[in-house]
Amino acid sequence: MTLLEDIQGPHDLTALTEAELDELAEEIRQFLIEAVARTGGHLGPNLGVVELTIALHRVFDSPADRILWDTGHQSYVHKLLTGRQDFSKLRGKGGLSGYPSREESAHDVIENSHASTVLGWADGLAKARQVRGGDDHVVAVIGDGALTGGMAWEALNNIADARDRPLIIVVNDNERSYAPTIGGLAGHLATLRTTDGYEKFLAWGKEFLQHTPLIGQPLYGSLHGAKKGFKDAFAPQGMFEDLGLKYLGPVDGHDIAALEAALRRAKRFHGPVLVHCLTEKGRGYPPALEDDADRFHTVGMMDPLTCAPLLPAGPPSWTSVFGDEIAAIGAERADVVALTAAMLHPVGLTKFAELFPDRVWDVGIAEQHAAVCAAGLATGGLHPVVAVYATFLNRAFDQVLMDVALHKCGVTFVLDRAGVTGTDGPSHNGMWDMSILQVVPGLRIAAPRDADQLRAQLREAVDVDDAPTVIRFPKESVGEALPAVARIGGMDVLRAQEDADVLLVAVGVMAPVCLQAADLLAGRGVRCTVVDPRWVKPVDEELVPLAGLHRLVAVVEDNSRTGGVGWAVGQALRDAEVDVLLRTFGIPEQFLAHAKRGEVLADIGLTPVEIAGRISAALTREELKENDG
Amino acid sequence: MTLLEDIQGPHDLTALTEAELDELAEEIRQFLIEAVARTGGHLGPNLGVVELTIALHRVFDSPADRILWDTGHQSYVHKLLTGRQDFSKLRGKGGLSGYPSREESAHDVIENSHASTVLGWADGLAKARQVRGGDDHVVAVIGDGALTGGMAWEALNNIADARDRPLIIVVNDNERSYAPTIGGLAGHLATLRTTDGYEKFLAWGKEFLQHTPLIGQPLYGSLHGAKKGFKDAFAPQGMFEDLGLKYLGPVDGHDIAALEAALRRAKRFHGPVLVHCLTEKGRGYPPALEDDADRFHTVGMMDPLTCAPLLPAGPPSWTSVFGDEIAAIGAERADVVALTAAMLHPVGLTKFAELFPDRVWDVGIAEQHAAVCAAGLATGGLHPVVAVYATFLNRAFDQVLMDVALHKCGVTFVLDRAGVTGTDGPSHNGMWDMSILQVVPGLRIAAPRDADQLRAQLREAVDVDDAPTVIRFPKESVGEALPAVARIGGMDVLRAQEDADVLLVAVGVMAPVCLQAADLLAGRGVRCTVVDPRWVKPVDEELVPLAGLHRLVAVVEDNSRTGGVGWAVGQALRDAEVDVLLRTFGIPEQFLAHAKRGEVLADIGLTPVEIAGRISAALTREELKENDG
Repeated sequence: MTLLEDIQGPHDLTALTEAELDELAEEIRQFLIEAVARTGGHLGPNLGVVELTIALHRVFDSPADRILWDTGHQSYVHKLLTGRQDFSKLRGKGGLSGYPSREESAHDVIENSHASTVLGWADGLAKARQVRGGDDHVVAVIGDGALTGGMAWEALNNIADARDRPLIIVVNDNERSYAPTIGGLAGHLATLRTTDGYEKFLAWGKEFLQHTPLIGQPLYGSLHGAKKGFKDAFAPQGMFEDLGLKYLGPVDGHDIAALEAALRRAKRFHGPVLVHCLTEKGRGYPPALEDDADRFHTVGMMDPLTCAPLLPAGPPSWTSVFGDEIAAIGAERADVVALTAAMLHPVGLTKFAELFPDRVWDVGIAEQHAAVCAAGLATGGLHPVVAVYATFLNRAFDQVLMDVALHKCGVTFVLDRAGVTGTDGPSHNGMWDMSILQVVPGLRIAAPRDADQLRAQLREAVDVDDAPTVIRFPKESVGEALPAVARIGGMDVLRAQEDADVLLVAVGVMAPVCLQAADLLAGRGVRCTVVDPRWVKPVDEELVPLAGLHRLVAVVEDNSRTGGVGWAVGQALRDAEVDVLLRTFGIPEQFLAHAKRGEVLADIGLTPVEIAGRISAALTREELKENDG
Repeated sequence: MTLLEDIQGPHDLTALTEAELDELAEEIRQFLIEAVARTGGHLGPNLGVVELTIALHRVFDSPADRILWDTGHQSYVHKLLTGRQDFSKLRGKGGLSGYPSREESAHDVIENSHASTVLGWADGLAKARQVRGGDDHVVAVIGDGALTGGMAWEALNNIADARDRPLIIVVNDNERSYAPTIGGLAGHLATLRTTDGYEKFLAWGKEFLQHTPLIGQPLYGSLHGAKKGFKDAFAPQGMFEDLGLKYLGPVDGHDIAALEAALRRAKRFHGPVLVHCLTEKGRGYPPALEDDADRFHTVGMMDPLTCAPLLPAGPPSWTSVFGDEIAAIGAERADVVALTAAMLHPVGLTKFAELFPDRVWDVGIAEQHAAVCAAGLATGGLHPVVAVYATFLNRAFDQVLMDVALHKCGVTFVLDRAGVTGTDGPSHNGMWDMSILQVVPGLRIAAPRDADQLRAQLREAVDVDDAPTVIRFPKESVGEALPAVARIGGMDVLRAQEDADVLLVAVGVMAPVCLQAADLLAGRGVRCTVVDPRWVKPVDEELVPLAGLHRLVAVVEDNSRTGGVGWAVGQALRDAEVDVLLRTFGIPEQFLAHAKRGEVLADIGLTPVEIAGRISAALTREELKENDG
């Protein structure tokens, strides 16, 4: 029996000796490496917080005290210590979530995987405690990377507003977001990290001044008044204390005793306090430490010893097709620049950054800034390409609308991981972009169906200089090329049949699904036209007359059905008084639990069988009505 | 001829003497007070930046140098100095915009009235200059209030990242957002403001140390190393310099010579620099200075001497109805708390704040934080009411979705100034809320049609404890009560006629418009049912069968037609296979130029005549088709 197996909950940590705690930490690391190698998941971040998580659960009394995890992908150790040790189906259907989950445990609070939210949650919980009364503790764990997000600043400003409302902020400083953290704050944190002279200097200064009578009152008074100043010079925690937060640290984030001491001090403090912990992402796993790009932030299924992937390499990913093409475009056009929000490699900008290091910026976990900065870049005569995950563009909706679109700026947003992403759970799905962006005047959205289209539409997008353009594509491998048989307006006809009954409007990667649905319908004697509209916003002018030639129009998209392309097509038809039968297929209005992408698509009915079946039923019903009439 | 009349553009400022500049400032203040009293508009903020604007235009060469205004309502002086002195139709149709406008002038850049964006724009423009080459200057003017917004932080972090990329940040510090600025930053700025000892101390210290040989090298070295520390103690600009920004100030924002000296120093600096200017909102206008609530932030048409409004007081505003009711609810329920984003008075929370000062928080210009903090408050057992202008909730879309809705938190969002607001121009209209919020699972939206409904629906909303609720209502006075003649499901029937042809779905304040349209249609022999759905999301279950009893359904809403209630009703009908004719009326997919609310509504066809006419035409066309068939 290992020590870890004996831990049923946080209280079981109490009795362990220092040596046992170190042994437990070692067991947890081995467990994580083996378990995550088997299923894939977040590895580096969790290896970095083993000791920190143990210390937190020894000092605080979860769930009465609330331990809140920002972003949440570093909560695996927390899961292990709170009764969840079956990692066999991690992130899989019916298995543990890769993030905190209130369904799983009373020890979990925040499920949202979007960064920088934890301080706002903590502020709310602390204020609620103040109103209700109570003496429970609120502890927010946030990475240095997440501190670059604007929400963190807004929260700090509020937390610091009440110096008598206790709240503990633990900064898990590993000098990284996904990749190394950028910006002025990173520099400031680095200063904090490398400062070790303060305590020594203070002791010396006190001694020196007490034994140097000649200096007298004026300087003594000044020095006394300057205490905060001195502190800033030798341990310049200034920024946080300037805002009104007590600063403790830096603390070695792999020394459980030191962590506990700092956390207990923080727990006794009657106001907002920040504990600065230095941790090492990938700690204890040499292959991770050698990988400077991301320290094994996430891994696929792999051999834990050799790190060789267990699955054969598939065809190129959408990301890599984009990455190659934007690099090629960059070589042709000196005015094309790129922005990313702490995701340079995951969004495929590595090559572009190597070739054009002066034309790419990682703005931190700051999508709002990416969008507004892009408006400025465009106004300054360049064409910015903002590459982010689709789900994270939600953060910048106002800026896309008010800064980019209102000012008619030529900015291209490249949305990777659009549609159903699957294993990362509800907050990673990029299923709202084609809905909320519908309202943005002038904005154009492309959903490429294959690699050729992605390349072509990216080039069309960067040629638009008076409006925002959006290219969205999913996670995983790009499928085979689907050549068009004809073009109508800006749309590609993928399948044409004389006197077709049904017009299938296939948005992006729904093209192969629609072609298969058309095959199934053909088997039932229903003739289909299948078009890929290519640009789904605005609705192609030729779509409406084409629709009028059919008995039923079906729009299929891997986006929330609510407010998406299907709804927009409906409006276009109504505006033209073409009142043809319309059916829309997409993601239902709900949050999707984690499971593989294909499993989720099957669950929500985005399959050829389901689509063909429902279209067939609608046609039958219509025929019955007509025969009735 | 006044000095002001002689100013055709910024270059005309060059030749003026110091005395003439002071005289010009005085003339501008008189002009502003008289002009804004005539039309209404932003007064206090513009009175505060007269000298600052003059100094900026003397030191920098606009438009080659870019002078960028955050939020933009303080750009009246800038307009006066850049060839725009006809304020007779300020904010009116065809008149000057109340914000910068690129259509008006090459000196204008940012039109967006949403706060905290300017630093992002400036970062983009400075980066574009770096890529293109060039030696023009980028100057961003931002208020202390706007620094509380997360975007400002994201931008500061990026600006500070390149210490060799010049960019000038002018902090216009009047200690206020709309109302006094809150938070830790405000405290820090206050420390900066009240610090005057640093320069004096430094001179004394240098002298003292040079003439005190006994102190010797160790302390001298320490003090030398501690220079930044000393600076922080006596002029604790620490926070900004910690991030890597050069800090200049504080400067008297009403001393043109001092401002020019600081700005010229900043202009010579080869990196990002922040100039901290202290200004007085409402400067030079005693009635404004006496009004501590908001220093005449905006005024209506008034007598400039007595400040008496020129228009008679109308019926109560939507805001005041909400304000009274939420205060009443607060008295009944100790768990109801309120949040606002730097808008306590304008959103009607004054009374609540007076009665329950410990249950209300102004979070700064930080809508994201308001939403996330609310999720924390709800998780902590309270029911938060977040009151903001509808247009500003766009900033918190991700947080409403990912923090409030995903976590099933009972939070009520009260959206004032929803729909067409008019004179404040494109970025103030609250016309997207009912579209983007459609996608949020579980969220419920109410659009009350009159004061009684607002009170009733607010109470229904705060009773929902497992999902976000939204109440949205427009600017201006609440209209007369419109009693229901019946209720079907959750919907109020406002007009019922036997065998009606048309079902008019009247969203919120479109109720009287729809009733008038029904009258017009009745005159043409078309019978109408008019319902107010009350809760527009989700679509009432009874709406679909009711729709099926009519030949045509028309949905009328003061929201973007794209993605709004009309589209949602369309989906509900399709899902139920009720393929009745549908027409949707709302705001077209475009940005709306400034004009009075009624003028805008008329321009976009949200009038009884237009609605009745289009419905009538659709019915006629349908009849012709049927006769054909």
